[in-house]
Amino acid sequence: MTEVPTSTPATLTPHWNEQGLIPVIAQEADTGEVLMLAWMNAEALELTLTSGEVVYWSRSRQALWRKGATSGNTQALVEARLDCDGDTLLLQVKQDGAGACHTGRRTCFFYRPSDGTWQLSEDD
Amino acid sequence: MTEVPTSTPATLTPHWNEQGLIPVIAQEADTGEVLMLAWMNAEALELTLTSGEVVYWSRSRQALWRKGATSGNTQALVEARLDCDGDTLLLQVKQDGAGACHTGRRTCFFYRPSDGTWQLSEDD
Repeated sequence: MTEVPTSTPATLTPHWNEQGLIPVIAQEADTGEVLMLAWMNAEALELTLTSGEVVYWSRSRQALWRKGATSGNTQALVEARLDCDGDTLLLQVKQDGAGACHTGRRTCFFYRPSDGTWQLSEDD
Repeated sequence: MTEVPTSTPATLTPHWNEQGLIPVIAQEADTGEVLMLAWMNAEALELTLTSGEVVYWSRSRQALWRKGATSGNTQALVEARLDCDGDTLLLQVKQDGAGACHTGRRTCFFYRPSDGTWQLSEDD
């Protein structure tokens, strides 16, 4: 299992879903903490790669969403990776301000499973 | 922006998309490395939480997919989190075997942007 198959293509392009979107994981570059998952269309990805400031596509507003445009909690792009089948992006970012989450928290992932539901967790 | 809004609900349930699925980020618990993104339906999530072995839903095969069932590259669940709006899961896992990727690599994220395309990158 250590030999890498030669069939892995040398180049790849993003695979957009039926809505023209791709899921994007944002990870804090310094700590490795996973901050959030959001979506991009081709224009958002292009803007992100050329500007170095992360721009998503808001599915609820159906509009480009420059992260932190209103909150000040911007994300500066450090590095971008596309996965093996081209259908997910991983961004290393520097999260500015209070955090990535609209609730003011650093990360969006703060509910833990407990007895069949998911409970708010503030102890980390 | 440091005050946490009191409107954050104390409990949450997963928000399944129109296909009954939720995206799941798998992160290596020890290193913080993001390994892959896959999908779960309600049954896969239930099996994962009760067994401690990660089970996804294969969209291509339209079947439950016990990670590593054929390759041996299983994922043991360390911790699960649901995000603030209930539409993404983050799993801390212990990745067994060669790695998470079907190509034999540790992580699925190994294409870097370069001149308008994404290039295979083996230098990390």
